[in-house]
Amino acid sequence: MSDLVSVDSMMKIITFLSDFGLQDGYVSQMKGVASIICEARIIDITHEITPHNIAEGAFVLRSVVPYFPIGTVHVAVVDPGVGTKRKGIIIATKKHVFIGPDNGVLLPAAHVFGDFDVYEITNRKYMLSTISNTFHGRDIFTPVASHIINGVSFEEIGMKIDDFIDLDFGSAEKKGKGIVGKVIYIDRFGTIVTNIPSDMVTKDNNYNENIKVLIGTASLDVCFVSSYGFVSKGEVLATIGSNDLFELSVNQGNAAEKLSVKQGDSVTILLD
Amino acid sequence: MSDLVSVDSMMKIITFLSDFGLQDGYVSQMKGVASIICEARIIDITHEITPHNIAEGAFVLRSVVPYFPIGTVHVAVVDPGVGTKRKGIIIATKKHVFIGPDNGVLLPAAHVFGDFDVYEITNRKYMLSTISNTFHGRDIFTPVASHIINGVSFEEIGMKIDDFIDLDFGSAEKKGKGIVGKVIYIDRFGTIVTNIPSDMVTKDNNYNENIKVLIGTASLDVCFVSSYGFVSKGEVLATIGSNDLFELSVNQGNAAEKLSVKQGDSVTILLD
Amino acid sequence: MSDLVSVDSMMKIITFLSDFGLQDGYVSQMKGVASIICEARIIDITHEITPHNIAEGAFVLRSVVPYFPIGTVHVAVVDPGVGTKRKGIIIATKKHVFIGPDNGVLLPAAHVFGDFDVYEITNRKYMLSTISNTFHGRDIFTPVASHIINGVSFEEIGMKIDDFIDLDFGSAEKKGKGIVGKVIYIDRFGTIVTNIPSDMVTKDNNYNENIKVLIGTASLDVCFVSSYGFVSKGEVLATIGSNDLFELSVNQGNAAEKLSVKQGDSVTILLD
Repeated sequence: MSDLVSVDSMMKIITFLSDFGLQDGYVSQMKGVASIICEARIIDITHEITPHNIAEGAFVLRSVVPYFPIGTVHVAVVDPGVGTKRKGIIIATKKHVFIGPDNGVLLPAAHVFGDFDVYEITNRKYMLSTISNTFHGRDIFTPVASHIINGVSFEEIGMKIDDFIDLDFGSAEKKGKGIVGKVIYIDRFGTIVTNIPSDMVTKDNNYNENIKVLIGTASLDVCFVSSYGFVSKGEVLATIGSNDLFELSVNQGNAAEKLSVKQGDSVTILLD
Repeated sequence: MSDLVSVDSMMKIITFLSDFGLQDGYVSQMKGVASIICEARIIDITHEITPHNIAEGAFVLRSVVPYFPIGTVHVAVVDPGVGTKRKGIIIATKKHVFIGPDNGVLLPAAHVFGDFDVYEITNRKYMLSTISNTFHGRDIFTPVASHIINGVSFEEIGMKIDDFIDLDFGSAEKKGKGIVGKVIYIDRFGTIVTNIPSDMVTKDNNYNENIKVLIGTASLDVCFVSSYGFVSKGEVLATIGSNDLFELSVNQGNAAEKLSVKQGDSVTILLD
Repeated sequence: MSDLVSVDSMMKIITFLSDFGLQDGYVSQMKGVASIICEARIIDITHEITPHNIAEGAFVLRSVVPYFPIGTVHVAVVDPGVGTKRKGIIIATKKHVFIGPDNGVLLPAAHVFGDFDVYEITNRKYMLSTISNTFHGRDIFTPVASHIINGVSFEEIGMKIDDFIDLDFGSAEKKGKGIVGKVIYIDRFGTIVTNIPSDMVTKDNNYNENIKVLIGTASLDVCFVSSYGFVSKGEVLATIGSNDLFELSVNQGNAAEKLSVKQGDSVTILLD
């Protein structure tokens, strides 16, 4: 996506992703803190991650980073271990900076940009003076992000470390007569997103032909189409979604509900 | 609303309306793309349109445009036909610019400003280099909006066309002893918004007097009041809402649920 | 929280809090109006307050104000009395400005900053030219906030008044062998927030020891911990939350549901 290399790398952007929801004041507390410390544009990724679902947060963060400018600083807070000994970390990649708990939520997104360095956040000078045990997003991660926007160096905030928690979504594999992967995300339309990349699928399958798919407990014979509009309302379809991954959907319906599929279920595309 | 003519027509604003919800990363992908291409203030109209409900999206967009400054660029993505042959269009009015699919969602809002020109989006130079089949909001409409903010001319992006899909909410009519209209929107409080304009109602009805209303399968004798606070909690009332249209509500309750009314139902105000 | 005194008191911020939800166009109408009149950064506190729940709105607003810069202007619209004779007010404190209906929703937040003056909004010059009976957030409060951002004086907008509606969350008290308070908020995780301040609790209780709590109809013997991660998944715990108040939670679960507790219920911490 070469056209997405920033034309304005001076733009200062902080994004926020969390499982806080929008009902309470938590998200705005983070934005207020950022506004006190730095002048940056704030963009919400989402705050509707299923509470404590680290993999779901990791997937959404990873799915959006190719669309943000160089220099973007991402704060991601899906943090069931807050207040325990889990570390807070900064990941400095070649294009974006990631800040959050050391539980893997930042890692799939960080890997998008190749090599990176990880720093443990330790310097209290860059945190709020009072640190709660339950809300490091506000008291540590947002202040750190804001000071980075202001030009504070990573080394000033903490030491480089090697022992961080990594996370990936696994690799789909060709096994015998099938491509075997798994469900990594279900969106609010009920679209089932798998970890099978588009090129593994399009090599052996043509649009507008049927393919056989085993998913969860279901065995399907569905049309592989380039977009939803090519099948009737209510029909299950297979497609390449906007993340360039193999997906199953129902046109104007909910595939995950219809097929009783959940995050983590296995998926096999049978090849003849 | 003469006081709403912009005092700062140089302000650059892009609004987003969609049926994507806020749970997934889709909305933030559009904002990231806009941030890469241009420097504009981004304002969300809503992303909670009922999936694929073009008329609902059209109503909400139409309801907000009088309150935005001259020069605002609106991107509206309620797009069940994405990936099929439906066009993408720009509508240039005297005050605002509208960008989205050619399915009518932009039209009621565009009509607010009188005459307009419609352009079909065709120049790939102003789209992302990779275009998915399922997410033109990100890959086409947002880049086009951002380039328009940067000063690219409509003619540079595509040709003027005459064959676009129009949409309106119908006109309420006086028939015999009644005013006949329909339900065009139900808001999250359950307020029933009709297409009957305030002047048709206030000509023959006084505040704090009862009026007879037939709606869906219900026949009502309700108080016409200037605001909710004039009836008891739980009571149905008729009023002129903030869109200057005839509405039915329940004070601190849900009128659409109570009366089993849905979008499209007919409404008649009986005159004596 | 001395580190939160603004480093940039020139930054212009308007926050919005309401019970409008994000589904309709109401919130964006307010943002559009603000964009026409002034140039300010807009930050949403929340729009998901339970409809008409003034105390809930008051709590959320109060919980966030310590985290915003000096000079922030807050617009809060939980307004069941809109269109009746209830006043619209401005509260000028030493640090922030508050604008909304005279029903108490602004008061707990205003009290955070000590003494204040209250003005009744009367000068129509600073409202929209057409004022609906149902949406003063858009037609009065947002324009007034925007003109204040532009430097218009409070006295220019209305007269100082003394008869406004105050609201507080009561004070927890030590009675005999217990600390008696009440539930003032339940967040979306089901966390039960009480009005018992941290210092009343930590004086007599140590982390990682059990305490006895009477709440609603439940009698509990729960571990007092510094953060959720110290108890097993599904277990009830007592802690000091991010608002520096005594809270009851379930680790990765919903305490309010599990204990059938609601806003207003009494809470007693028994001391041995």
